[in-house]
Amino acid sequence: MKKTTIGIVGYGNLGKGVEVGLKHSVDLELVGIFTRRQPDQLETSSPVYHIDKLVDFKDTIDVLILCGGSQKDIPTQAPKMAELFNTVDTYDNHNEIPTHFEKLDKVARNNNTTAVLSTGWDPGLFSLNRLFAEAILPKGNTYTFWGPGLSQGHSDAVRRVEGVKHAVQYTVPKQEQVDAVKNKKSLDYNKQDAHKRVVFLVLDENADEKKVRESISTMPDYFYGYETEITIIDQATFDRDHTGMPHGGTVMRQGKTTDENTAVYQFGLDLDSNPEFTAAVTIAYARAAGKLAKEKQYGAKTVFDIAPSYLSPKDPKELRKELL
Amino acid sequence: MKKTTIGIVGYGNLGKGVEVGLKHSVDLELVGIFTRRQPDQLETSSPVYHIDKLVDFKDTIDVLILCGGSQKDIPTQAPKMAELFNTVDTYDNHNEIPTHFEKLDKVARNNNTTAVLSTGWDPGLFSLNRLFAEAILPKGNTYTFWGPGLSQGHSDAVRRVEGVKHAVQYTVPKQEQVDAVKNKKSLDYNKQDAHKRVVFLVLDENADEKKVRESISTMPDYFYGYETEITIIDQATFDRDHTGMPHGGTVMRQGKTTDENTAVYQFGLDLDSNPEFTAAVTIAYARAAGKLAKEKQYGAKTVFDIAPSYLSPKDPKELRKELL
Repeated sequence: MKKTTIGIVGYGNLGKGVEVGLKHSVDLELVGIFTRRQPDQLETSSPVYHIDKLVDFKDTIDVLILCGGSQKDIPTQAPKMAELFNTVDTYDNHNEIPTHFEKLDKVARNNNTTAVLSTGWDPGLFSLNRLFAEAILPKGNTYTFWGPGLSQGHSDAVRRVEGVKHAVQYTVPKQEQVDAVKNKKSLDYNKQDAHKRVVFLVLDENADEKKVRESISTMPDYFYGYETEITIIDQATFDRDHTGMPHGGTVMRQGKTTDENTAVYQFGLDLDSNPEFTAAVTIAYARAAGKLAKEKQYGAKTVFDIAPSYLSPKDPKELRKELL
Repeated sequence: MKKTTIGIVGYGNLGKGVEVGLKHSVDLELVGIFTRRQPDQLETSSPVYHIDKLVDFKDTIDVLILCGGSQKDIPTQAPKMAELFNTVDTYDNHNEIPTHFEKLDKVARNNNTTAVLSTGWDPGLFSLNRLFAEAILPKGNTYTFWGPGLSQGHSDAVRRVEGVKHAVQYTVPKQEQVDAVKNKKSLDYNKQDAHKRVVFLVLDENADEKKVRESISTMPDYFYGYETEITIIDQATFDRDHTGMPHGGTVMRQGKTTDENTAVYQFGLDLDSNPEFTAAVTIAYARAAGKLAKEKQYGAKTVFDIAPSYLSPKDPKELRKELL
């Protein structure tokens, strides 16, 4: 069987995750990585091309995986590339997803391409589980807990505080709240009170520790109003314990099947590497995009619109026999 | 909007679960319950008809939910009813699913109906999660743990032992094995060693306890080779603690995103009432069957073939805005 050919656009953590993840999929083949940098600057054994050359690959790449950022890259890149290619992205600005969808859908329909958006785990697998849980248990409440996991945005914010040399911020769900939902107890949930923010940082020489702590705790939007724990560590400890990108979380729904009986629906992820797992999800949806385009199912698609069998390299008959 | 009209075939635990569950879905409407018994024997305020009258409802019922047993009812009932109706079933004989699919698919395609098979949670939601997890993490192992939960078949087997008055059997996964997978440890899994069988029973007067215990522990297929715990209780304890039908379980996959990094994918259910939750899943797939038939997507479908959005009463735009 002919393999589905893949192009990677962007070579940050996500792009690297896709590159390595593709090696686990025998039905997919990496054609090249496309970058805005000088191609020879990338340390990789895969073929690398300047992004300006992308158009030359119109007939040799089945699906492009867009690995740029949601703030600046995807909103402009995705609609443009969907003119020529089937695409998959990990656009994660929840509020703007409907707009992103409409834009992509128009371009993809006009150009007979398939554009799968907002894959990954949130949006992505978490969204899917919110949908399944709510559709099956209409009478109930859904709870999302993020972490324990590294928050890139919050880590950056701490690093910008004067006196901070290195820093990481972990979002940690409050275990007693997670347990309450699991144990069928009622919970007055709000996102802010359900999570702690745990900071580990290395101080600059001569930094004012008290001032650093205060600057972090009172930072609006990021930390103010959250339970925040700040631990000062030395460089060696930082290098040893805090250079990974772990993440994960849980989506749960407590639903009533009758007044007497409760059902708890639970989906969880525990990831040593957030970008590698996000890449793994994206790869499965790239496979789906390839199949959908072959069937002329054009337009924008979210994880809600794609039948699960499209994600697997196995054919429907194998799936029924082995996994149902 | 016109509601999707539903018929229930069979009025055991599952049929009762569907009847009560439909009350939570504003877009679905129960037309009637169809039974082989005399209709006036059923204790319910819903309309009840003899199953021989079913054909009269060909034009008024959009989807039939088949609530009979997988051993004797579904294999013959489903293909026959799919000649006239869109159907959903909970056929759970895993080995025979491919045959059931082929039979149903032929009938449904010939008659322009949609037949959704093997919904529920295993097969059903557990199958879906086995597929998602394997497609996303190709390099890894999937583990299924069933329970803690009441096993109907094993309870019946214990009840047939001489000297046993009442009995229940719970299947209980070994927590240390569940924890090993969660904690990213390697596990040499087999279904038999991963579960305990826990029996609570009330003895007949003058029963030989030793003989009862031995008959159970050595029963081939059901208990022999399993770690089995048998507890003798009195009637009052039995009536107080062991008349529900709880169940649940966990599907987990430990996958490697790179040689260094592991991801744990976890899906779990904790159900006070197994038949009520199975009914709830089936209802969501009945909604899907109604939509698929309207779009002329005829033939047999499994949970793998149905895009998640079909399960929800919300339209795709609402779903993107609220749940993605």
